[in-house]
Amino acid sequence: MSERHITLPEGFTAAGVTAGIKASGKRDLALIAADKPVPTALVTTTNQVVGAPVIWCRRALPRGYGEIRAVVVNSGCSNVCTGDAGLRDAREMAGRVAEKLSCDPQQVLVCSTGVIGQRLPMDLIRKGIDQAALSLGREDDSAVVQAIMTTDTREKSAKITGKLGGKEVTVAGIIKGAGMIAPSLATMLCYVTTDAAVSPAALGKVLTGTIDGTLNAVTIDSDTSTSDTTVLMAGGAAGNKTITGNSAELGKFAELVGKVLESLARQMAADGEGATRLIEIAVSGAKSPDDARLAAKSVADSPLVKCAVHGADPNWGRIVMALGKSPAKVVGEKLTVKIGGTTVFARGMGRRFDASAVAEYLARPEVQIHCDLGLGKGRYTAYTCDLSRQYVTINADYHT
Amino acid sequence: MSERHITLPEGFTAAGVTAGIKASGKRDLALIAADKPVPTALVTTTNQVVGAPVIWCRRALPRGYGEIRAVVVNSGCSNVCTGDAGLRDAREMAGRVAEKLSCDPQQVLVCSTGVIGQRLPMDLIRKGIDQAALSLGREDDSAVVQAIMTTDTREKSAKITGKLGGKEVTVAGIIKGAGMIAPSLATMLCYVTTDAAVSPAALGKVLTGTIDGTLNAVTIDSDTSTSDTTVLMAGGAAGNKTITGNSAELGKFAELVGKVLESLARQMAADGEGATRLIEIAVSGAKSPDDARLAAKSVADSPLVKCAVHGADPNWGRIVMALGKSPAKVVGEKLTVKIGGTTVFARGMGRRFDASAVAEYLARPEVQIHCDLGLGKGRYTAYTCDLSRQYVTINADYHT
Repeated sequence: MSERHITLPEGFTAAGVTAGIKASGKRDLALIAADKPVPTALVTTTNQVVGAPVIWCRRALPRGYGEIRAVVVNSGCSNVCTGDAGLRDAREMAGRVAEKLSCDPQQVLVCSTGVIGQRLPMDLIRKGIDQAALSLGREDDSAVVQAIMTTDTREKSAKITGKLGGKEVTVAGIIKGAGMIAPSLATMLCYVTTDAAVSPAALGKVLTGTIDGTLNAVTIDSDTSTSDTTVLMAGGAAGNKTITGNSAELGKFAELVGKVLESLARQMAADGEGATRLIEIAVSGAKSPDDARLAAKSVADSPLVKCAVHGADPNWGRIVMALGKSPAKVVGEKLTVKIGGTTVFARGMGRRFDASAVAEYLARPEVQIHCDLGLGKGRYTAYTCDLSRQYVTINADYHT
Repeated sequence: MSERHITLPEGFTAAGVTAGIKASGKRDLALIAADKPVPTALVTTTNQVVGAPVIWCRRALPRGYGEIRAVVVNSGCSNVCTGDAGLRDAREMAGRVAEKLSCDPQQVLVCSTGVIGQRLPMDLIRKGIDQAALSLGREDDSAVVQAIMTTDTREKSAKITGKLGGKEVTVAGIIKGAGMIAPSLATMLCYVTTDAAVSPAALGKVLTGTIDGTLNAVTIDSDTSTSDTTVLMAGGAAGNKTITGNSAELGKFAELVGKVLESLARQMAADGEGATRLIEIAVSGAKSPDDARLAAKSVADSPLVKCAVHGADPNWGRIVMALGKSPAKVVGEKLTVKIGGTTVFARGMGRRFDASAVAEYLARPEVQIHCDLGLGKGRYTAYTCDLSRQYVTINADYHT
């Protein structure tokens, strides 16, 4: 594959190599580097138990933004619950990359994903880093995204171009994640690069502002990982006037980032473990935006709703149940539920509808369920996937 | 089967008949009657969308307790989201039973379980009620519990005897429920009878006081039904001095009820849809009892933990993840996790343990996971089951 994404914005190189961490022999170590330290924003998991790499990243960017030269990522082992030794390993990874790129170790972010509770095979990691540093700019971007994947079945990437202050800018991103996914202020591993010139603080504002309706809107299985990390790096090669917190262009830039994150969020949900289809739960008419989010997530997390969609069964009773159990205010008599364009429930009761036509719609690869609560103006869309036997197979037969 | 439970306390009769509501031709209508109106306590679902039977029961006992003569229950159709017509159907069920037993319709509780959004087949229901009224005292108790079952694979009942004020008293109960189970102040359908003499208000206090650590501690799939109902009826035939809110014997009686409810809760979790084993999540050392409950439920609701147990995989990383994502305060370094008696995680890291011995333990029909948060004195035990391909099969292939 020759498609470029993560290195498309000028000023970035990347590599994905096989260090030998994964037993499968697939690529498992990636390096994404800017030509110089560049403004970077970071968001990490809200899980109270976090891995050594997350601790390292938070120390490198204690305010959630600053200047970073590179990110090193390995798959196959998450370096979580590994104590002080694990933290030393994360620091050594940053140090080795810093040596290769002649920068400060604090300017290198570290991410790891895979099984919890095992030490990293540092011998393999060291050789992998050396190899990746040599390969920077010589591998295609497909190798990079492959190297961060675990149970993902597809490479997931997105890119967009736009104009800022008369200059064309590009935003591009890659993502991995298929299980243990219910991000809360973050998501599995996601890297976004841009050639736009943006101040570190403005970049932090844009990332936290766009993540809630995109990556945080995904739930595969309601389980929040200990390693979720999202990094947004702005190289500045586009030559636009640097965007700051007060720039008129800030919103326009946030929109570009938001679109890339939304595309990545949808791709991640569609590739959830065992998933056969993407489910979009759009809630409107909620008493508040918070209520809309709670209601949408309650439906998106319901195993019964996810099984019904898997079976292409227009079982609106389960959707109404999932709304009713949510902490959001719900009144059956004010509620309208649509599957695709078809109203299946309104004014407290099921409506007559063509069940076989709706069943056919539910068998499509992308399904939209729209719930209008009829109580206010709050809106939120959550992304999830169906629940299949394959999800159980992946997660019961997988052994630590 | 000739085992008696629900009619074991003197003063109660019951019947379970085949009205023809279930396509399977299995029993689907039950009647539980006291010889006279007796003190009764009621708890119903916290789901904001509730069925007509729940609305009827709440109107009959607006304070959650009072005097009731009988409960009529049908399976095969839940009479939820059926509007005013559904409410008329529930009222007619109560009225018809009242006529047969020569009591007031308000003294008859009504419960329905099964598919959401369909009207009850009232012709069949009427005939079924007539038949059940004729059969009172002539059927064995097994017929009664069969008539309230849906996807349950086993009859679930419990009984206990004890002394109150020098008199022997009996408490007995039956329960149904296998899917859409994450009760919140209630559970699927549960009926408990006793011959103890207890005032209505004291009975209400005992039911709400014992339900939280028992029926509410069960979660099969985190989905809360629109029909959850629990009824506790006290006939008084034991002849003990009537227990009131101030009686010294109140605690003793509550203990008996609590034991019956705990047994029913465990049986329900073990028979969860697709379940191959019961999982008990015991949390201790939480900052508060609320935190203990939140932490235990977070582990019990985690699809990844449930899949790991299904695969008999001692994957403690998922248990730690589920604790960390919960709203309860969790500090990895203070946490200890045991599977069976074996410590698998302590002081922030996995411990050395015999993985094959723990895997063997996890393959047993009852599994205990103990999490000590090391932060305080809060305790809670949640009950759940493993997540199997069969759960998906049941809930994806079932069509409305």
